[in-house]
Amino acid sequence: MATKPYVIGIDMGGTNTVFGVVDARGHIIARSSIKTQTHKDVNLYVDELCTEITKIIDSIGGKDLIRGIGVGAPNGNYYTGNVEFAPNLPWKDVIPFSKMITERIGIPCKLTNDANAAAVGEMTYGIAKGMKNFIMITLGTGVGSGIVINGEVVYGHDGFAGELGHTIAIRDGRPCGCGRKGCLECYTSATGVARTAREILETRTDDSLLRNIPIDQIESKDVYNAAEKGDAIALEIFKTTGTILGQSLADFIAFSAPEAIVLFGGLAKAGDYIMNPVREAMEENVLRLWKGKVKLLFSSLKEADAAVLGASALGWEIEE
Amino acid sequence: MATKPYVIGIDMGGTNTVFGVVDARGHIIARSSIKTQTHKDVNLYVDELCTEITKIIDSIGGKDLIRGIGVGAPNGNYYTGNVEFAPNLPWKDVIPFSKMITERIGIPCKLTNDANAAAVGEMTYGIAKGMKNFIMITLGTGVGSGIVINGEVVYGHDGFAGELGHTIAIRDGRPCGCGRKGCLECYTSATGVARTAREILETRTDDSLLRNIPIDQIESKDVYNAAEKGDAIALEIFKTTGTILGQSLADFIAFSAPEAIVLFGGLAKAGDYIMNPVREAMEENVLRLWKGKVKLLFSSLKEADAAVLGASALGWEIEE
Repeated sequence: MATKPYVIGIDMGGTNTVFGVVDARGHIIARSSIKTQTHKDVNLYVDELCTEITKIIDSIGGKDLIRGIGVGAPNGNYYTGNVEFAPNLPWKDVIPFSKMITERIGIPCKLTNDANAAAVGEMTYGIAKGMKNFIMITLGTGVGSGIVINGEVVYGHDGFAGELGHTIAIRDGRPCGCGRKGCLECYTSATGVARTAREILETRTDDSLLRNIPIDQIESKDVYNAAEKGDAIALEIFKTTGTILGQSLADFIAFSAPEAIVLFGGLAKAGDYIMNPVREAMEENVLRLWKGKVKLLFSSLKEADAAVLGASALGWEIEE
Repeated sequence: MATKPYVIGIDMGGTNTVFGVVDARGHIIARSSIKTQTHKDVNLYVDELCTEITKIIDSIGGKDLIRGIGVGAPNGNYYTGNVEFAPNLPWKDVIPFSKMITERIGIPCKLTNDANAAAVGEMTYGIAKGMKNFIMITLGTGVGSGIVINGEVVYGHDGFAGELGHTIAIRDGRPCGCGRKGCLECYTSATGVARTAREILETRTDDSLLRNIPIDQIESKDVYNAAEKGDAIALEIFKTTGTILGQSLADFIAFSAPEAIVLFGGLAKAGDYIMNPVREAMEENVLRLWKGKVKLLFSSLKEADAAVLGASALGWEIEE
């Protein structure tokens, strides 16, 4: 057994920052959270965060038991430990979080973006344990990705590799928040599903349970609920979404020839409604040599724990 | 200085197999070749190849001076050392070339496909020397790619990663030799350029120097010659081709965030006619965070030497 049996994971979200102490088997043995948005001054935010982390460290026996701290944060850069110009955080600048946390707590800290952290988490505690080559796709409000090659996350030349949500799924398609058009994220995120729902309902007249909801309030979970009741339009929305994702996955396979693609996030919970079309489109569109070879998997981590687990997994990279 | 100062590179092509002895600075100090196609029995082919290689080894001072042998071959698998079901070679099967060569010559041998070999060559002797993250795109009869991440070629789970010529550039586009539609290779290879020429000439009536050539005999070098004379259609063909390639490169950047993209092959010689639209489309389509950041480079290796140099570079991976 390692002399330092625990790591700490910090999941920095736009609304809340959640953190926990995690053991080598992926159990969160202590957890807490603070509000992210209430602090306009990033120093006060980090002060509160470190005060609270110190409390849970003390509660489990002190910092000599902690091997390292891992942070998953939007626009997090693994090489620098900075969060750089994150649109969903209150601080629009380059913030050296990793350094700030290490200085205040006295434990080494590594940081990356949330999707990369999810990939490390899946490799350390989850369904990708033992896999050297896989691609993690997170299907949430946006679409993120973490690419693992030879057992290591791909960070690229600048630390920002793996933005597969911003590869073009449909040339000159829907406008994306990134300023371009037709990104995968515009179609296969939760918001993309809602957009597809609105497009179909607005341009057609066939009946649907979704017509009972004000059109600008439809969310992806409404589409799921309608699909559960056999609603034809809801099923069509998932089929369209899954087909676009499967087509893109076929291209991603040509890049890194992964053993598996692991899906995670709210949308993946739509189960067969989306997974069947994803699998079908992926198999139909992939180059012959990979047909039937690449596993399409769900994350095996509990959704409530996954972000903290993913971030914490970076902590094991710290040398004892 | 290494005790074994040389490596051998073997470029296995459909028509000829070219090989040479190479020093650490990328000079080919002895070279020769044999016909690939004349041997229906692969054992006879390897016998002749190894006999000829032994001759040039003897001519430079014997095999104690050779560190390793590298082979670039279509459908070559780095992990197994096999060539598997190569459509352009006379032997339609799994051929354990690496093992066969090592057994006959008594020098360790590594093998990969031609585009991966080109990437290793560029990293060892060429313009990518010292780069840890770049993507090599070979624009020849087909479109190949070699992806380097953290200083290593990406082979993926099965050894076949990096088939970027078979990512979809235009959904439901031109039929591709691979059985699918719209692959990048259908547009940005030399044959793709000729197809674009035929399409434009057949569907339009405007004047062009290309109309002096029987339409089914137009090659990409004819388009280049016409462009040199200011022919508007020829220039448009290169612009269309370059735009499609630039759009795809923008997506490749989102995958691995490379320091550079290195182009190689006949088509890249069309110079600014194609490079300007490539660069323009790449910059216009890439995610904001990479705008102006990723270098677009030409190979710096002499085209006649590049394949042998690329293959030979694998030889330096052999431990002394």
